[in-house]
Amino acid sequence: MTADALRRFAADVFERAGMPGGDAAIVADVLVWANLRGVDTHGVMRIPRYVNLLETGDMNPRPAIAVRSETPASALIDADRAAGPVAMMRAKAEAARKAKDAGVGFVLVRATTHTAALGYYTSAAAREGLAAVAVSASWPNMAYHGARAAGVSTSPISIAVPDGKEGTLLLDMGTGVVSMGRLTQAKKTGAAIPAGWALDKKGNPTTDAQAADIPLPMAGPKGSGLALMIECITSLVVSNPLISEFIEGTAKGRRHRQNGLILAIDIARFGDPETFRHEVDRLVKAIKSLPVDPQVGEILMPGERGKRTLARRSREGIPVPRAIMDELQTTAKRLGSTMPASPSG
Amino acid sequence: MTADALRRFAADVFERAGMPGGDAAIVADVLVWANLRGVDTHGVMRIPRYVNLLETGDMNPRPAIAVRSETPASALIDADRAAGPVAMMRAKAEAARKAKDAGVGFVLVRATTHTAALGYYTSAAAREGLAAVAVSASWPNMAYHGARAAGVSTSPISIAVPDGKEGTLLLDMGTGVVSMGRLTQAKKTGAAIPAGWALDKKGNPTTDAQAADIPLPMAGPKGSGLALMIECITSLVVSNPLISEFIEGTAKGRRHRQNGLILAIDIARFGDPETFRHEVDRLVKAIKSLPVDPQVGEILMPGERGKRTLARRSREGIPVPRAIMDELQTTAKRLGSTMPASPSG
Repeated sequence: MTADALRRFAADVFERAGMPGGDAAIVADVLVWANLRGVDTHGVMRIPRYVNLLETGDMNPRPAIAVRSETPASALIDADRAAGPVAMMRAKAEAARKAKDAGVGFVLVRATTHTAALGYYTSAAAREGLAAVAVSASWPNMAYHGARAAGVSTSPISIAVPDGKEGTLLLDMGTGVVSMGRLTQAKKTGAAIPAGWALDKKGNPTTDAQAADIPLPMAGPKGSGLALMIECITSLVVSNPLISEFIEGTAKGRRHRQNGLILAIDIARFGDPETFRHEVDRLVKAIKSLPVDPQVGEILMPGERGKRTLARRSREGIPVPRAIMDELQTTAKRLGSTMPASPSG
Repeated sequence: MTADALRRFAADVFERAGMPGGDAAIVADVLVWANLRGVDTHGVMRIPRYVNLLETGDMNPRPAIAVRSETPASALIDADRAAGPVAMMRAKAEAARKAKDAGVGFVLVRATTHTAALGYYTSAAAREGLAAVAVSASWPNMAYHGARAAGVSTSPISIAVPDGKEGTLLLDMGTGVVSMGRLTQAKKTGAAIPAGWALDKKGNPTTDAQAADIPLPMAGPKGSGLALMIECITSLVVSNPLISEFIEGTAKGRRHRQNGLILAIDIARFGDPETFRHEVDRLVKAIKSLPVDPQVGEILMPGERGKRTLARRSREGIPVPRAIMDELQTTAKRLGSTMPASPSG
């Protein structure tokens, strides 16, 4: 499927589910961007889930997004259960504006929904010449170190800076030892997973990909510590706790809710932006000059593999597995939308 | 040794090495704080090295610290090779002041030296009711994922927030799979280290603690990616690159230099600070209510072990190994200072 066809389809579905056209297009673009970069777990396979969230009322198609507690450098955006991409792009825009004004822009996002690919927002800021850091908080889906149950979320962290060549150097990582995508991949191939990757539903360590349910945190206490502190500096600062409500089993705790934050830094305020871009390239070149670990085979920069996949999939199209196509078809039919025909039929 | 005696001794040494009394006291307090919390690698064992840095001119005992590019929310502090604790406490003070003014305070630190225990500065901000995030950048001492050589540093990340009971919830972690402290500990006991912890001097993977020289990044590309992005958002933003200069082997690259940043967030600007503190306690309680992993034995919060060690060492004193005592004695003698007598002789 071409990116354009998928984008049009996704936007049409979200519009039929109640979103204004502009918002539907933003959500569609963020999902397809993830597919283009090879992060299919955050791509169009999410469409049925998003529609479901809209139907249950957890995601608000026409949110009254409000900016609160505003200063020249900071703001709290009350997202009113907006689709994550809509809330986060609004936050990115506010943070960028404030950064250009005050050197730094710090925007908290309260009561958003699935933030999708966090790197989309930081790299959008980097394309404007800013450095950007973003995190997001969600309900527990990852083990807390020392516990045999989900206690924190695989809260992602993304950092992006502009470089001199291809636009951006982009880190976008979860705090788990392994991404949900890689766990899903292992489930498909049926291969055993290494010890230390996951617990099963009951909280017991497992090397059976089919049984793997709760990923373990990266580097034990470090990954779960980071995730816990992300909950503190996002959810607790915006008075919308997710983890304690979930663990206590309150009604609110079982509803889909997320919080996030984005920090934008105006590089040009602190030095020459052209020198900065040159220095990013120089740093990349220096790291790439190091002796290669033959077991890995190549020294890659953060986001480099995604950039390659983007180039290939922009040319060759995005592979969508049959099972996902069927789910999308079901959603399309229910909403009166039409799936684009895939080139292979 | 009591904390007080060590503090007085360290301050006396730094004053004799040229620092003003106030600055010497700050450095002494930061080092002894690390000892009190059990992070002995960042404690008084650093004194001889700091004195050496002062003597070679890499650390400036009487720096002309200057605030540049200032806005109501941000600043770049040119530290003029100040001792890390002096530069970072100045940065903490500026960030806290700006946060109370503008909701957020973002302070970059250029050309500092060894930042010591990063958690000291974030927890100092948290004691003022702020949330704080700090990172620091240094020359390469950790493998970059995919390379068989040091390519990035074990750049620490610290996040602290005020809680309702004991003051602060504090995360202070390096980006390596294991801390230098644990590697040093393994060297002493002579036990084999797990595969995946370190490379030897030549860049080959090793399980021999004695040969271990270059720690590996936590979670492979995640740890080294974070460390690389920390270099970008600190060193490159302040125009003081450390990694590329080091790898290229320039004269400047082999001098001891660090950069850092601290972000302070005024919790009270975005919600009720008492509710925040209550919510931190509630979150801790929820996580601690989870089923315990019998292999770990206990669910600990970030910084909890350090807090316990602090309580014990405040009562019982700080154990300083004979070898460290001898090194301190040598430094003391050369500068005309007197080592405090240890209670055991």
